[in-house]
Amino acid sequence: MKRIYNFSAGPATLPLETLQQAQADFVDYQGSGMSIMEMSHRGKHYDAVHQEALANFRELLSVPDTHEIVFMQGGATSQFSFVPMNLLHPGQTADYINSGAWAKKAIAEAKVFGSVNVAADFGKEIPTRQAYADELKLTPGAAYLHCTSNETISGAQIKAFPETEAPLVSDMSSDILSRALDISKFGLIYAGAQKNLGPSGVTLVIIRKDLAEQANANIPEMFKYQTHVANQSLYNTPPTFAVYMLCLVTRWLKAQGGVAAMEALNNRKSATLYDLIDSTDFYRGTALPEFRSTMNVTFRLPTEELEAAFIKEAKAMDMDGLKGHRSVGGIRASIYNAFPEEGVDALAAFMKDFEAKHG
Amino acid sequence: MKRIYNFSAGPATLPLETLQQAQADFVDYQGSGMSIMEMSHRGKHYDAVHQEALANFRELLSVPDTHEIVFMQGGATSQFSFVPMNLLHPGQTADYINSGAWAKKAIAEAKVFGSVNVAADFGKEIPTRQAYADELKLTPGAAYLHCTSNETISGAQIKAFPETEAPLVSDMSSDILSRALDISKFGLIYAGAQKNLGPSGVTLVIIRKDLAEQANANIPEMFKYQTHVANQSLYNTPPTFAVYMLCLVTRWLKAQGGVAAMEALNNRKSATLYDLIDSTDFYRGTALPEFRSTMNVTFRLPTEELEAAFIKEAKAMDMDGLKGHRSVGGIRASIYNAFPEEGVDALAAFMKDFEAKHG
Repeated sequence: MKRIYNFSAGPATLPLETLQQAQADFVDYQGSGMSIMEMSHRGKHYDAVHQEALANFRELLSVPDTHEIVFMQGGATSQFSFVPMNLLHPGQTADYINSGAWAKKAIAEAKVFGSVNVAADFGKEIPTRQAYADELKLTPGAAYLHCTSNETISGAQIKAFPETEAPLVSDMSSDILSRALDISKFGLIYAGAQKNLGPSGVTLVIIRKDLAEQANANIPEMFKYQTHVANQSLYNTPPTFAVYMLCLVTRWLKAQGGVAAMEALNNRKSATLYDLIDSTDFYRGTALPEFRSTMNVTFRLPTEELEAAFIKEAKAMDMDGLKGHRSVGGIRASIYNAFPEEGVDALAAFMKDFEAKHG
Repeated sequence: MKRIYNFSAGPATLPLETLQQAQADFVDYQGSGMSIMEMSHRGKHYDAVHQEALANFRELLSVPDTHEIVFMQGGATSQFSFVPMNLLHPGQTADYINSGAWAKKAIAEAKVFGSVNVAADFGKEIPTRQAYADELKLTPGAAYLHCTSNETISGAQIKAFPETEAPLVSDMSSDILSRALDISKFGLIYAGAQKNLGPSGVTLVIIRKDLAEQANANIPEMFKYQTHVANQSLYNTPPTFAVYMLCLVTRWLKAQGGVAAMEALNNRKSATLYDLIDSTDFYRGTALPEFRSTMNVTFRLPTEELEAAFIKEAKAMDMDGLKGHRSVGGIRASIYNAFPEEGVDALAAFMKDFEAKHG
């Protein structure tokens, strides 16, 4: 069996142990004579997986009783609509921080449903960054403030979340479970699974119960957070195999020492690359140092030709997925929880060699 | 490896060959050093799978050039909203046939968006059935007529689709690909995958191009059919592993002889059970004979106690999932394309033995 270093921004590398476990049980799940993906979502086997996944998330993230955890479909892109549909009440304004490509999409969809105030707009600045507390122009009585905790494309990550009176809503698709958080400070968190949690096709949502209960009523049942809260994410058929993979990944995370262990590992992994970038003029980080992402390490080389050569030579050494997003170019090393530290060390060694050869 | 007969209504049994293929390739997809679920949805491996799945559906269903095929998320339950959001224009009325539990849900969600006319309402009749052509009270200039081709719970299936001036929209979640269809007669078809196509988490949609192009504009990008048409279902990250399984299932279907072969097989499998039901008073079919589903064979026994004993004894003989939907009780044998004919024969033999013992 071959295994490469997969720096893809998402769908992304998963813990090898979880893949091997799923493979072993794939056709005949625990002697049941069925694959887990062939089973009724209301049967005992799947229900055990579903409940364990919910419980593991609650434990790993220390989610308080004031908040509910639900699984939905449609990715973060659907949440861009579900959030205002539910939480932006008639006559209210929602505040959004435009920190980059993903925030911009969230803002565009929110405008379909109501009044939007862009509280800070620096999505096109280079070096890329997140907001400073003193630049936010917040709306009194805003429905919520929306932020993007980690801009996957730009590699800029919020280090201190805004303190607000309005409920804080955050798209955490690319850094959920990568660090300890005080969940009680958030009104709603959502994350597409395919970066830090599991395969694509399932979205993790954590919502304050009172916000779900007080959401707009005249929207489809399927798009109401409260529907999924009240039905423990079994209102309709969930993406059962994706939830099963989430369950395996959360088990793995617990065995690794949970979020605290991941945070230490992610700090170490990203520091290896940022220290190397800072030690030379050959590589230039894309994000302001104080906002550098521990998940998506973005940098440039002196020329686009060198960047193309870098990607090609890395790929030949079984380091794949290093090409920056097509909208911005450059290099992006996505090193989520499941990305092994040896892979980061291998990339760092390659970067040194590449500079020695081409610098 | 153990393999039982799984009569689950969905998620449901899949072709054993497709599960074994996916298992073999699960950790290291075709020597790439990655699982297919770890790969970028914009990379060459996944793209080949995605395009093949689309092409296979077009071939299997003889989808004409006037129609597009897209993959979405959120199941048929989300389509209950997406259909009126896109196709029910201001000032128009949409016609719906209330044929049972699933149609009823579709109607409720449509009412959130506009005017709905229930063209026929027999959803609570027993024996269960589908509409007669002469009972439909259609609205002149209706946005569309919505029907549910196969009511999974009641076991009633449309045999001749209504002829209408308005675009015909059909929820085909539980019988898509089970029989030949003239796709040109439909404006829009949707189907959650987890019954006849693959795992839960992906929805197949076939839409007439002009309907997608003329859909309501002021709705979120993610909920517009045209967004997914224009982006070949890659506007956002698709549920890649679910699409991969669809690809394997469509390959299997082609190898079996396509939809014509499935239709013959499904007619034969369901006739085995209905013939047995008609040969005795011990078993009573739930649906009117002319509307009997080839996919979900629903029937009752003389008492609920006997039904409970039937389900229990069948389960002990490795025939699982025969319990009727919790809302209606009784017995339901779901025998989708992938359900093996030997399993139907085994159930028929068990039914004869059970009657001899308890009748």
